[in-house]
Amino acid sequence: MRILVTGGAGFIGSHLCGRLLHEKHDVIVVDNLITGSLDNIAHLAGREDFHFIKHDVSNFIYIPGKVDIVMHLASPASPNPNSPFGYPQLPIQTLKVGALGTHNALGVARAHNASLLLASTSEVYGDPKEHPQQESYWGHVDPVGLRSVYDEAKRFAEAITMAYHRYHGLQTHIARIFNTYGPRMRLDDGRVIPNFLCQSLRGEPLTIYGDGNQTRSFCYVDDLVDGLYKLLLSEEREPVNLGNPNEISIQQLALTVNHLTQNPAGIQLLHDQRAPGDPQQRQPDITRAKDILGWEPQIDLEQGLMKTIEDFRRRL
Amino acid sequence: MRILVTGGAGFIGSHLCGRLLHEKHDVIVVDNLITGSLDNIAHLAGREDFHFIKHDVSNFIYIPGKVDIVMHLASPASPNPNSPFGYPQLPIQTLKVGALGTHNALGVARAHNASLLLASTSEVYGDPKEHPQQESYWGHVDPVGLRSVYDEAKRFAEAITMAYHRYHGLQTHIARIFNTYGPRMRLDDGRVIPNFLCQSLRGEPLTIYGDGNQTRSFCYVDDLVDGLYKLLLSEEREPVNLGNPNEISIQQLALTVNHLTQNPAGIQLLHDQRAPGDPQQRQPDITRAKDILGWEPQIDLEQGLMKTIEDFRRRL
Repeated sequence: MRILVTGGAGFIGSHLCGRLLHEKHDVIVVDNLITGSLDNIAHLAGREDFHFIKHDVSNFIYIPGKVDIVMHLASPASPNPNSPFGYPQLPIQTLKVGALGTHNALGVARAHNASLLLASTSEVYGDPKEHPQQESYWGHVDPVGLRSVYDEAKRFAEAITMAYHRYHGLQTHIARIFNTYGPRMRLDDGRVIPNFLCQSLRGEPLTIYGDGNQTRSFCYVDDLVDGLYKLLLSEEREPVNLGNPNEISIQQLALTVNHLTQNPAGIQLLHDQRAPGDPQQRQPDITRAKDILGWEPQIDLEQGLMKTIEDFRRRL
Repeated sequence: MRILVTGGAGFIGSHLCGRLLHEKHDVIVVDNLITGSLDNIAHLAGREDFHFIKHDVSNFIYIPGKVDIVMHLASPASPNPNSPFGYPQLPIQTLKVGALGTHNALGVARAHNASLLLASTSEVYGDPKEHPQQESYWGHVDPVGLRSVYDEAKRFAEAITMAYHRYHGLQTHIARIFNTYGPRMRLDDGRVIPNFLCQSLRGEPLTIYGDGNQTRSFCYVDDLVDGLYKLLLSEEREPVNLGNPNEISIQQLALTVNHLTQNPAGIQLLHDQRAPGDPQQRQPDITRAKDILGWEPQIDLEQGLMKTIEDFRRRL
């Protein structure tokens, strides 16, 4: 198959490209590199089955030749307002790639009679009032809040993807991706695992915004990519949660990271500096992914963190 | 002022144009006429202070000369899946005008250093779990449901409008418009008041989908337009509900319409035919509009219905 991957130079996108090439597909990456990086795909450069186009998918794109599958991953994804690569610093680009970008990606799929997989997000659930989140939960999102540039763009992306399926008969898939981590995350991404790894490897105390009792569930990127690939091979059209249901508090995570990196500097709680809209809990219910795709994460947090620490140590 | 009104040939848009011209503004209407009609603005044609451009605002538009204000009203707005003019029959156009259209309208405003008013909707609250709806309520919307083509498009429109205000400093206004009725509604619009008026004026029984206990709050169009104009003159950037808080059941409405039209045919309850996603209750809390704009509806339901009945009688 010839597969177009928007955002293929990003963290998840680049791992996905590796998997697709391993599965003997041809891959075309479209990425504007505002949060992605050529470093992530440098090891793929020069292969005959791999092509890179520097382009913003929010603007019209024409792909010559046949396209069998479009995978739309392009988007800033870090909620950290202090990172230059967080969506709060890239609000208009984030809104555009979610709406105009998804519209263009669907247009490419339709023109080529290709299928499309949308990389959506657990952020469509917002600050959830149900826990864990099932796909049937409608979410709790402030349409005009600071995080709406990402959350509403992705909710719109889901709506237009379902509309292309329902009304144009396009074969579509929607993955709701929960927190994912692994090698090639930006060091300055601003999300908690890169922050903790950078701090611990520098021997600094790990900074926690809030009381540390907020929980997250972290999925190792290889597991996530496996879920995306299985979803792609399925006939499922409704959204499917992909994430690791093992919940951990941010404080526990910090202690684990310090343990694995043998960082003696401890943790630092910044009680009053919780980001606005930061959800208290976020945990996927992956019953549907198990039932429909036969998928569940295989790599536990310590294993995944060790691989990620290796990569961060090399890059720091 | 020179004011661009997208959707100005629609029901609310055309009444708004009349008011703006009355207030001595110059008006340019952009409308693709897929749900609007030239009949609605025929009485304005030929005026020097009024211009019409047939164009889909979902595609890029360049407006020569100065623009002081952009009012983005363009969108299909009827939820009736049986009407050819309901958004369920126009899903992709509805998604596009909410996202790409709003993006283009914001682009025009930014290029001209103009302000922008977004016509949003009570549908951003979805099937609400709080009653009445205050602007602070985040809503209850299924992102992949049949109504998401309208609801999520408008939520996205709000998000990108706030983003242009926050990050580009654009002077913006967001009106959340609740059910509005009056002369010039399409006879085949599919919403309840046009349906009831057509049936009653034909001497037919009024069809109610469901048990008739679902409630609505209906605002007469002149009141609504007055609210939009007051919002336009204000400095308010956060969403403001505009609607009539007087709640009435659909059954009560039917009895009132039959009384006013002296229709002896009664009502017909179709218990099992309630449209999916049809909210049980919808009522605006207009405290903010009262406080900030000094606005509240002046025209009661019987008065408004009489004016609307006159117009429908003439057109039928």
